[in-house]
Amino acid sequence: MYINKTISFRVILGFAWKNLFIFTILATLVCIVYLHYGVKQVAIPFLPLGTLGTAVAILLGFRNNSAYDRFWEARKIWGGIVNTSRSFARQVTTFVTTQFAQGDMSEENAKTLQKELVYRHLAWLNALRLHLRREDLLNETCWYELIHFISEEELKEINLKQNKPTQLNQLQGERLQYARSVGLIDDFRHMELDRSLNVMYDLQGKCERIKNTPLPRQYAFFTKVFVWVFVCLLPFGFVDILHWMTIPLAVLVSWIFTVLEQVGHYTEDPFSNGINDIPMTSMCRTIEIDLREQLKETELPKPLRAVNGVLM
Amino acid sequence: MYINKTISFRVILGFAWKNLFIFTILATLVCIVYLHYGVKQVAIPFLPLGTLGTAVAILLGFRNNSAYDRFWEARKIWGGIVNTSRSFARQVTTFVTTQFAQGDMSEENAKTLQKELVYRHLAWLNALRLHLRREDLLNETCWYELIHFISEEELKEINLKQNKPTQLNQLQGERLQYARSVGLIDDFRHMELDRSLNVMYDLQGKCERIKNTPLPRQYAFFTKVFVWVFVCLLPFGFVDILHWMTIPLAVLVSWIFTVLEQVGHYTEDPFSNGINDIPMTSMCRTIEIDLREQLKETELPKPLRAVNGVLM
Amino acid sequence: MYINKTISFRVILGFAWKNLFIFTILATLVCIVYLHYGVKQVAIPFLPLGTLGTAVAILLGFRNNSAYDRFWEARKIWGGIVNTSRSFARQVTTFVTTQFAQGDMSEENAKTLQKELVYRHLAWLNALRLHLRREDLLNETCWYELIHFISEEELKEINLKQNKPTQLNQLQGERLQYARSVGLIDDFRHMELDRSLNVMYDLQGKCERIKNTPLPRQYAFFTKVFVWVFVCLLPFGFVDILHWMTIPLAVLVSWIFTVLEQVGHYTEDPFSNGINDIPMTSMCRTIEIDLREQLKETELPKPLRAVNGVLM
Amino acid sequence: MYINKTISFRVILGFAWKNLFIFTILATLVCIVYLHYGVKQVAIPFLPLGTLGTAVAILLGFRNNSAYDRFWEARKIWGGIVNTSRSFARQVTTFVTTQFAQGDMSEENAKTLQKELVYRHLAWLNALRLHLRREDLLNETCWYELIHFISEEELKEINLKQNKPTQLNQLQGERLQYARSVGLIDDFRHMELDRSLNVMYDLQGKCERIKNTPLPRQYAFFTKVFVWVFVCLLPFGFVDILHWMTIPLAVLVSWIFTVLEQVGHYTEDPFSNGINDIPMTSMCRTIEIDLREQLKETELPKPLRAVNGVLM
Amino acid sequence: MYINKTISFRVILGFAWKNLFIFTILATLVCIVYLHYGVKQVAIPFLPLGTLGTAVAILLGFRNNSAYDRFWEARKIWGGIVNTSRSFARQVTTFVTTQFAQGDMSEENAKTLQKELVYRHLAWLNALRLHLRREDLLNETCWYELIHFISEEELKEINLKQNKPTQLNQLQGERLQYARSVGLIDDFRHMELDRSLNVMYDLQGKCERIKNTPLPRQYAFFTKVFVWVFVCLLPFGFVDILHWMTIPLAVLVSWIFTVLEQVGHYTEDPFSNGINDIPMTSMCRTIEIDLREQLKETELPKPLRAVNGVLM
Repeated sequence: MYINKTISFRVILGFAWKNLFIFTILATLVCIVYLHYGVKQVAIPFLPLGTLGTAVAILLGFRNNSAYDRFWEARKIWGGIVNTSRSFARQVTTFVTTQFAQGDMSEENAKTLQKELVYRHLAWLNALRLHLRREDLLNETCWYELIHFISEEELKEINLKQNKPTQLNQLQGERLQYARSVGLIDDFRHMELDRSLNVMYDLQGKCERIKNTPLPRQYAFFTKVFVWVFVCLLPFGFVDILHWMTIPLAVLVSWIFTVLEQVGHYTEDPFSNGINDIPMTSMCRTIEIDLREQLKETELPKPLRAVNGVLM
Repeated sequence: MYINKTISFRVILGFAWKNLFIFTILATLVCIVYLHYGVKQVAIPFLPLGTLGTAVAILLGFRNNSAYDRFWEARKIWGGIVNTSRSFARQVTTFVTTQFAQGDMSEENAKTLQKELVYRHLAWLNALRLHLRREDLLNETCWYELIHFISEEELKEINLKQNKPTQLNQLQGERLQYARSVGLIDDFRHMELDRSLNVMYDLQGKCERIKNTPLPRQYAFFTKVFVWVFVCLLPFGFVDILHWMTIPLAVLVSWIFTVLEQVGHYTEDPFSNGINDIPMTSMCRTIEIDLREQLKETELPKPLRAVNGVLM
Repeated sequence: MYINKTISFRVILGFAWKNLFIFTILATLVCIVYLHYGVKQVAIPFLPLGTLGTAVAILLGFRNNSAYDRFWEARKIWGGIVNTSRSFARQVTTFVTTQFAQGDMSEENAKTLQKELVYRHLAWLNALRLHLRREDLLNETCWYELIHFISEEELKEINLKQNKPTQLNQLQGERLQYARSVGLIDDFRHMELDRSLNVMYDLQGKCERIKNTPLPRQYAFFTKVFVWVFVCLLPFGFVDILHWMTIPLAVLVSWIFTVLEQVGHYTEDPFSNGINDIPMTSMCRTIEIDLREQLKETELPKPLRAVNGVLM
Repeated sequence: MYINKTISFRVILGFAWKNLFIFTILATLVCIVYLHYGVKQVAIPFLPLGTLGTAVAILLGFRNNSAYDRFWEARKIWGGIVNTSRSFARQVTTFVTTQFAQGDMSEENAKTLQKELVYRHLAWLNALRLHLRREDLLNETCWYELIHFISEEELKEINLKQNKPTQLNQLQGERLQYARSVGLIDDFRHMELDRSLNVMYDLQGKCERIKNTPLPRQYAFFTKVFVWVFVCLLPFGFVDILHWMTIPLAVLVSWIFTVLEQVGHYTEDPFSNGINDIPMTSMCRTIEIDLREQLKETELPKPLRAVNGVLM
Repeated sequence: MYINKTISFRVILGFAWKNLFIFTILATLVCIVYLHYGVKQVAIPFLPLGTLGTAVAILLGFRNNSAYDRFWEARKIWGGIVNTSRSFARQVTTFVTTQFAQGDMSEENAKTLQKELVYRHLAWLNALRLHLRREDLLNETCWYELIHFISEEELKEINLKQNKPTQLNQLQGERLQYARSVGLIDDFRHMELDRSLNVMYDLQGKCERIKNTPLPRQYAFFTKVFVWVFVCLLPFGFVDILHWMTIPLAVLVSWIFTVLEQVGHYTEDPFSNGINDIPMTSMCRTIEIDLREQLKETELPKPLRAVNGVLM
């Protein structure tokens, strides 16, 4: 996620020079043909273009609205993941006790299970992040990120599954059932913890929905087509009333409309590893710190910082 | 669901040639009458058309907004079905145990019931899909798709009912009641599983709502009428200011407005077997893989792939 | 609910002829005064009308948006009623058993109570429908529709109450309390069933909210006034630029704006017995079939069909 | 809440005459200066005003949308209060029984407690209404309205508190705790009833939110400023093209824009004792009737009727 | 939060003088160059500017809509905090009793724990406020505000943590577990209170989401850029039609567009210590009063009042 308040001129230019170049060429050509060679027929009156412009602006408004809604929903989902993680850790640390056990479970058994459950949750979290960014769990970085939280065998086994986070959550459920069977939790607390696992499936599924279902292609594609039709007609509509001023003004207006189109394009897929992404890496780290503090650990990693204004 | 980033020129043309043809004929006729035969009276000033165009654009914006909301709600519902299915499978595999049974139930009884419940859930899922696409369960393909998951007698009995998925879910409830009566689940877990069945009825009912209640006909129909009134007036408004340029420009602007109308039309019914449908077949397959992995099965079907950019 | 894809020319004309007539007279008068008698002062330039038109279009967009939201919310509520009804029936048929009874309750007692509860729910459902459509329960048709589901005395007693569906639901609660006191349900299941009754009060109350609180009168009324101000000014703005063409075009544009206003008007009250109503009668029938199938009954009524494209 | 379908000419005029007067004076002055004294410089071309008008219309659309959302949310909250009240009464009448008591509680004790809880709920309801309308509980009318439902001492004690409804609900919680301690409810039912109290705190807090947080002042204020800037410029923009027709048309368009602004203004605060308020007094009465019918009382007050089209 | 109905001329001017100055200079320069020196080439026709203005207005509408949604969501979250606080206090005061204790717990133990839990909740509340406003807990004022509610050691320990409110809530969970282990609450009430802690994590996380995720920079930044492009072009578009009137009108229109941009800017971050903030300090005080009244305390602080129309 880009977090600076302004965007530097260089970034914008690096981003936009291609379009600016095309618009300048086109506008210059139109001006030369009309003003220099006097081919008056290339000019079209501006009025119909104004109407077209309003229609295209409404269309862009709709599209950017939808793109932003997708971004914001994605951010809400990850906010929900933060909240559920903290609640889950609080529940694990206060619900898993020897109070209801039939005697053969020591305080240490409870502590070990608490840590195991919280750490596997962190594994789920990071696996979900890698899953959404379509990164291979087998590559070295990912493996290194997950091996802190679960055992090597478990990681290998999970790696064989179609949907890794789903099966990690399934494992959590099985461990809770084990905890119930040995008495480290009772029925009430079992149900409560299990409901938290339901919430995690919900949140995971919502992320997958946004990832797998882009804004309907017909909307995105035709919006782009219509914006380009409009900006390509612009110099023809301008040339008769603006003469040589057509060049700067057509370039400016064209640039505004195409930037709006691109802003929607870059916002609509919030899990694509781009600079407008949800900062999942940073959020996973934040959650890790909070949860390990809840486990009373003290040697904790540092929060991630933005690099060049981008928080990953 | 169409998943490619661009839509090929051929698809667009195949889609649009009829309208393009009509617009060209109309614009050409108007030009000939006005420019060739000099019937000046056919021209109308553009200004009122501009106002009409803005009104029609606002109308289209509203309609497409609603159509997209329907599509996205449908996708959310199916996302909810994914999440509930995974939760239900995790609950079934960890809640149905011999822990609370009075002794006459073996571990194998529990396993068998787990599989039965998960498989019947997959039957419900596929029956819902076929129900929404108005496909007859008796035809060979459908029968073949469901017979994996439930017994032949059950399938025959269900087939006699008015609403098949509803009665499959009712059967799940009856089997849970049986499980409770023999002690394979206890009261806590029974209530929890039963609530999941409530969620499934909710999700099913929401699909049926979208399927059975189209966008109010008065909105859809008058939007279409007004778009056509507008595009038919366009060449008359253009001819005086654009002369022969009327033909390409009127065709272009008309095409943009009618495409927008059609995009809404094709998006508004997300369960209609069209190319902009929710990819229910593919999602059923994904759920099947996840759930059978949760049952620790290893011989699993492959995920479906898009054919010509369309995922069913 | 009107369900045909197109609306026949006759229906539209029957609907619109009055307005069309007024617009034609007005436009003709303006033309005659201006063109025939040459009273140039009646003409006003179109430009300010264009601005007014945009404002009115935005206003109409807002109003129709709100009207559609009301319709769709009403449909969602009735969708929720469908879902809760099925869930309630599944719970009743699987929760009301002799498993927890202290011995003096036979299997038949349980079955009778199941049927009573499901049938009273159907009575609630139909009473809610009649309540929303402001139909008197005492008239013969209504009585006939409810007497299937509850006893004559109960119906008579309910009939004396201010709010019939509320008191039917209260009765359900009292019967559940009875069931608990004789042991046909236990505490868990009692709470679960009672929560379903809460959901029904929620859904009923939401219907009553939409029924009793129209779109604020100031919005609806001023929207109508402004549309009419605009369409009455139209011919004066057209006559100078369109001459005799004013008549067809003013009529057309006026018709579009007034139809948009009327579409909102007819959509905003979805429980008014109009042709754009939520098809409550048909939905009550559908629910009846489903619930009676859940009770394993086999002699069921037929689903309702649309008459002249209208489903009640 | 104003409930008539149309608003009489007199009401509108009484409402609007001030503005109409100002607009007429202004437009007449502009006309005289321009047309009579020929000061051509006062005229400004209409085109930039058109653009400004569109911007102001979009702004008004946004503001009225927000105002309506506030009204509708307030109505939803009071709808929720209706539903929760009915559910609470059903729960109280069926959950508070001697079934779980240890013997020293008679059927009459239960009945008395039922009535006390339902009546104190009615006191909460009316106290909330008076609290939202900023009415002093000590004045005679209010006292008279509440004294039906709770004892005089309780009313006096409550009256000393900062937030009266909050402490009434607290009292309900304490009485439920008492009921549990003497065995008139068991743990299950206690939790269920307590959750209903949570819901009431939610609903009360939502009302307070809308009451205490107006639409951000910067939106409301600048919208008003910009509307007035626009309508004051109007006659200057009209005079050159409309001449003496400026007077009626400027007044008309100005009136439309200022009415739209006022409609938003009057809708945005739904608990202000104005004619567009949520009809809280009437709803309190309706709830009272329903709840007392649920207690099987028969001597009930009458529902309130609208006075001059206004339901309070 | 600014709460006065109007904003004084002085505030507006203090706010806007910079921009007004720039606009005046620019417009005057354009007028002088065009009208005095007769450089006709600097003028551009207004028509394309009108289209640009509509696009910019739609963009601003979208942005302000989003900014307002952020503000209103933030207010809803703090409303939720109010509601949950009251419910939590009611639950603590009625659930923490000696009824389920095994005898070694006196009534006073219960009262002490009730007070501790409610006071720590108030500490959480204030810590959350300080956390959102990025204030250091170690500075004297903050320390002074929190030391009322928790012990000095606890405050010091919490201060070492990454996320203070998270760990305070964790402590609440641990104290509830303690209360359960000594029998001051039973399982039912433990689960219910623990769920309230979940709700608090949810509300806290939602605040952090809004605080940490601004409106995507690309939207905010480009909206500002486009508004400025538009207002800088305005005098060039006005000068040919308005002559010297360009100066007041360009300044006016420019000011309207930039104010709209700024209004969005100041609304979009509701936890920034600005004058449009959610009044968190005041709300914390209100909650404190309510909760301490629920504990039957009588020496209570006063509610906060607005200073210069601003409620903090």
